[in-house]
Amino acid sequence: MSNSNHTQAAQDRYFMMLAIEQAKQGLYTTRPNPAVGCVIVQAGMVVGQGFHPKAGQPHAEVFALKDAGAQAVGATAYVTLEPCSHTGRTPPCALGLIEAGVQRVVIAGLDPNPQVAGRGVQLLEQAGIDVTVGVLTEQAEALNRGFLKAMRTQMPYVRLKIATSLDGRTAMATGESKWITSVAAREDVQKLRALSGAIITGSETIVTDDPQLNVRSTQLGVPAEQVPTPKVVVLDRRQRLAHNAQSEYQLCRRADTLYWRKDDLAELLRHLVSEHQCYDVLVEAGASVAGSFLCQQLVDELIVYQAPCLLGAAAQPMVNFHPLSLSEQLRFKVSSHEQLGPDLKLTLYPL
Amino acid sequence: MSNSNHTQAAQDRYFMMLAIEQAKQGLYTTRPNPAVGCVIVQAGMVVGQGFHPKAGQPHAEVFALKDAGAQAVGATAYVTLEPCSHTGRTPPCALGLIEAGVQRVVIAGLDPNPQVAGRGVQLLEQAGIDVTVGVLTEQAEALNRGFLKAMRTQMPYVRLKIATSLDGRTAMATGESKWITSVAAREDVQKLRALSGAIITGSETIVTDDPQLNVRSTQLGVPAEQVPTPKVVVLDRRQRLAHNAQSEYQLCRRADTLYWRKDDLAELLRHLVSEHQCYDVLVEAGASVAGSFLCQQLVDELIVYQAPCLLGAAAQPMVNFHPLSLSEQLRFKVSSHEQLGPDLKLTLYPL
Ligand SMILES: [Zn+2]
Ligand SMILES: [Zn+2]
Repeated sequence: MSNSNHTQAAQDRYFMMLAIEQAKQGLYTTRPNPAVGCVIVQAGMVVGQGFHPKAGQPHAEVFALKDAGAQAVGATAYVTLEPCSHTGRTPPCALGLIEAGVQRVVIAGLDPNPQVAGRGVQLLEQAGIDVTVGVLTEQAEALNRGFLKAMRTQMPYVRLKIATSLDGRTAMATGESKWITSVAAREDVQKLRALSGAIITGSETIVTDDPQLNVRSTQLGVPAEQVPTPKVVVLDRRQRLAHNAQSEYQLCRRADTLYWRKDDLAELLRHLVSEHQCYDVLVEAGASVAGSFLCQQLVDELIVYQAPCLLGAAAQPMVNFHPLSLSEQLRFKVSSHEQLGPDLKLTLYPL
Repeated sequence: MSNSNHTQAAQDRYFMMLAIEQAKQGLYTTRPNPAVGCVIVQAGMVVGQGFHPKAGQPHAEVFALKDAGAQAVGATAYVTLEPCSHTGRTPPCALGLIEAGVQRVVIAGLDPNPQVAGRGVQLLEQAGIDVTVGVLTEQAEALNRGFLKAMRTQMPYVRLKIATSLDGRTAMATGESKWITSVAAREDVQKLRALSGAIITGSETIVTDDPQLNVRSTQLGVPAEQVPTPKVVVLDRRQRLAHNAQSEYQLCRRADTLYWRKDDLAELLRHLVSEHQCYDVLVEAGASVAGSFLCQQLVDELIVYQAPCLLGAAAQPMVNFHPLSLSEQLRFKVSSHEQLGPDLKLTLYPL
């Protein structure tokens, strides 16, 4: 690589990082759309920036081009996702970039959405624009794991969250359990919920805990009421819960609650994508539901909030499954570990 | 604080940090003596440094003063532990510093050893030397937790090590268990052993695992054969193990193995300090022994090597104890968390 290419690659990463920071501002509010950011750079200076705030509102490129005005002519645009090529609720962004006179477009990753899928790049190149794809792809894609997985596979990205003690217990044998983990850990769970199009729980969890499963955090960077309310899915195979507004349980009183009475969890996940555009799914349930999702290899990410306490050998297990030998254990790769107040948060990927 | 005092305090911390780095070189070899380092500074330059390598050999100050030679006159000596005042196997270091013409002595912490306990400082001050005590005390004391605790309380510093899965299991219900954690984690255990004057295990562990419990690491920074062999203590209340050289078990064939056949674990710990100068004790045993030490509040530090795997709800628990309610749980403070190969190492202090 020549020295000037080297410098350009470093500059591209720097400005893409700024575009990713823009995209993050929409992280909790764009669902089911992806979070996208855009930065317009003229002679090494940022002259425009923007992000997609919410489904139905303009895309990131529109805000950034408007911000740049006439300075977009001859500029480079950094976009965290391939500009769209189809006319949806808004005109295609690829055309917007062409019309604004942008000279070069740098894209973190292609849009697997079948309505785009390379056609955005094609449009730009046909207009004589220099296009670079693949700058900070991984960091940009980390913002839209659900959207990208769903577009590619028609299955959602599934996060399984478990709060546990150091010895892998969630409650005493008697059921006594509330608030094993700290306020800081529970606040972090709010972020997981705010990322999710749907939250799956079990009828057992509703009967024992009657949780709210709503997003009520003040630490999202946006008001909680701007976050689309996640759909609640209750696994109720044995039909323990009445499907009516008079229910004694909080969740059951929510209009958007879906009762899933079949066995097939993979079918549920496909259904959530195809019928409800739920691309990020959070499983917050008991040990049996956790075991089912894990054993059926339906989990993309396991998030463990681990309180530094021991509840003892008779306390309830965090995952209910019964391998017959060590060779049947479930193995993971640790992606990150961090302290949240007194607790640890571990993020793991199934192997 | 005036500006020059501020500068001096920063300089003192810097040179004490160097003295602590010296001390670390003796970390695994000085037992039962503490690890101590010394740096001699003349006009802002290090002119001599040394550490105590091994019981029976000269103290850190002797090496550092020898290294400095005539440049010790008018210099400042940084020592990680109060210089000794008593004639042991070597003459008192306080006198050595006085005779060398040192002008100022900076000490991380006082020596609680009743044979020193402030008398080192007293000797220095009587000779007109300017003495500062309390620079980086915590970091220096972290090197000698066992020695310091034993001198203060006649009890050793007890580390409890447990290797477990993410769901707090150590083995399958069938007993199948070997190598849940990785090579990197097991290598780290070698460091814990090398720090320890004694390793306590249970007869059950010997019968099921027949471990070696020796120090065989190549990653200690010193050859393993320079590390004093930890005394092995076998808890054998039920007298399952023959106390003779013909034993079928590896550990039982070691001459320095101590069999403890009483119930009282606190008495054992006191005994290890008073009779065997074992100040750092590592407990490497099964879930029941771990439970006993924890419930009797005899643990100073809990080290958990956590493999990112799930062994299931029927697998064996990491700690065998049976609290009746959440209020009887054992709580800890997380001191550190780090990744070792694929595993996590958590260090915790009981609350
Ligand atoms: Zn667009
Ligand atoms: Zn000495």
